[in-house]
Amino acid sequence: MKTIRTLNLLAAAIVCTLAFATTAARAASDPLPSWNDGPAKQSILTFVAKVTTAGSPDFVPVPERIAVFDNDGTLWCEQPLPVQLYFALDRVKSLAPQHPEWKTKEPFASLLKGDLQTALAGGDHAVMELFMATHTGMTTDEFVQIVNEWIATARHPKTGRLFTEMTYQPMLEVLATLRANGFKTFVVSGGGIEFMRPWMERVYGIPPEQVIGSSIKTKFEMRDGKPVIVRLAEFNFNDDKGGKPVAINQHIGRRPIAAFGNSRGDQEMLEYTQGGNGARFELIILHDDAAREYAYGPAQGLPDVKLGAFTQAVYDEAQKSGWTVVSMKADWKQVFPAEKK
Amino acid sequence: MKTIRTLNLLAAAIVCTLAFATTAARAASDPLPSWNDGPAKQSILTFVAKVTTAGSPDFVPVPERIAVFDNDGTLWCEQPLPVQLYFALDRVKSLAPQHPEWKTKEPFASLLKGDLQTALAGGDHAVMELFMATHTGMTTDEFVQIVNEWIATARHPKTGRLFTEMTYQPMLEVLATLRANGFKTFVVSGGGIEFMRPWMERVYGIPPEQVIGSSIKTKFEMRDGKPVIVRLAEFNFNDDKGGKPVAINQHIGRRPIAAFGNSRGDQEMLEYTQGGNGARFELIILHDDAAREYAYGPAQGLPDVKLGAFTQAVYDEAQKSGWTVVSMKADWKQVFPAEKK
Repeated sequence: MKTIRTLNLLAAAIVCTLAFATTAARAASDPLPSWNDGPAKQSILTFVAKVTTAGSPDFVPVPERIAVFDNDGTLWCEQPLPVQLYFALDRVKSLAPQHPEWKTKEPFASLLKGDLQTALAGGDHAVMELFMATHTGMTTDEFVQIVNEWIATARHPKTGRLFTEMTYQPMLEVLATLRANGFKTFVVSGGGIEFMRPWMERVYGIPPEQVIGSSIKTKFEMRDGKPVIVRLAEFNFNDDKGGKPVAINQHIGRRPIAAFGNSRGDQEMLEYTQGGNGARFELIILHDDAAREYAYGPAQGLPDVKLGAFTQAVYDEAQKSGWTVVSMKADWKQVFPAEKK
Repeated sequence: MKTIRTLNLLAAAIVCTLAFATTAARAASDPLPSWNDGPAKQSILTFVAKVTTAGSPDFVPVPERIAVFDNDGTLWCEQPLPVQLYFALDRVKSLAPQHPEWKTKEPFASLLKGDLQTALAGGDHAVMELFMATHTGMTTDEFVQIVNEWIATARHPKTGRLFTEMTYQPMLEVLATLRANGFKTFVVSGGGIEFMRPWMERVYGIPPEQVIGSSIKTKFEMRDGKPVIVRLAEFNFNDDKGGKPVAINQHIGRRPIAAFGNSRGDQEMLEYTQGGNGARFELIILHDDAAREYAYGPAQGLPDVKLGAFTQAVYDEAQKSGWTVVSMKADWKQVFPAEKK
């Protein structure tokens, strides 16, 4: 009897040891293989280790491990134009037959002639008109379908890759590493909330309820006897700059402990994150890699770039506040994931 | 060697068997012990079984298992007045020294004299004024502290129990059963989103990011050099009736597969839930138990009750649409949880 019990214990110990060994092997392998060794990579790993080590003074319980990510320029490429603008342009083309008046009405007339520069010369007003004309009137279910059909085939004008393969491999690894360490990852983007949700679960592993963005007003109604939500041509919320902390509070209700961005639009989100008690982490990405992606913002000495890009002021605040600044050129071994053929 | 290997396998098998046996024992015990046997209890268990059984035509993948719950009158008692109103009244008392003008200004003057009826005779306008005067001006962090301090000691005027122990035990069991079956549970309430979040994780197991409610506008600012969010005296969103599906779409971005309510304010949320494809579940609670809780709405033949209670119309729709109607009196073995002494 005693021998059997001893052997049972031994066997149980072996089972346990094997389980631990597997975990250890997984942990020992590099969780951020697309990052070059250096202070940026190290700052991420150090932060994750200290908030997840039981007994550490910086330990953070799992429910409070909230991380927020900007999208355009932080998780995927936003040059030469933010992706959602290409979606709007393609929508104009496909809706044009139903809108003969667009032939003489700006910004539509120039767009239909392929003259993007004249079309966007109207600034925010022109962009808003473009969005309202192409993003509203349908139900939310119909809009999901429209987005899904478009994103399945839409490609970047320069690389010819699917936009969903213009994501940053190093940032996909950061998302996965945080989640593997008990974090809940959220997108907090100036982009349209319902433009992002249909594909982010598949592409980033972030479910719809963890995607926060700008929005238009919607309305519940019975349409043909079916209960639906209709997208109205009325702006609701601008999830940018000071709007980001407001939206984080509204949707999440906790102050994040980690925030990732790349532009002036992310500054308040990073400040808000840093303003909480305990260990915090803030990171901004400097687009300084003209060869593999784009170089813009401070990397080019530009004072500002349209649609909210990185400015010298954000860069200065990062230096002053101890935020991690990532140089795409120096810190990233690989920029985009391998293309799926 | 062979003996050792056999014994190892045997031991491993024992470990596995024990693990399975524990799970089986847990599953075999009644997950809804505070419910009397009957069609209401059965409808909940049947629904959970069919959406979680792999291979079933009604199977729903885990990420889509979204369940939404009204709060007042669905998860906790809303009589004689919704709890948040007691919070507002206590705030008026504690703020009165800073507001000498309230002595002659309604609804404050009557409230301070203890004359609730006259104070609330001003209807929605009076209630809104009361909320703005007591819920705004501070930072969101300060408001969380105010709510936490109040809810720790505030008690129901009739039972003398803590409000947080005026929750419905049978509904706590439904929340737990759904979560044990891979559901994400959300509150979707007409109550203030920031009034509910501080205590719902502790009381219902629902984290802040899964609490949706009515809201006021807020603003990000630097106050004494600290990045904070300030609560403004401006209404933002009324999470009631048609507002509930709109808020569900805004916060969750998926149509729920199960919805629980008790009043006219929940009707559109249940309709919206039922309007999706595949297996759906809708439930409303009929307050017909004057002895153990309250009897109001159709149970009393009342045409309507103030602040959004159950109406005959909702009851009629429930019958017609096949929603589960719960009689507190007949279906609940126990109403409130055991008091913590």
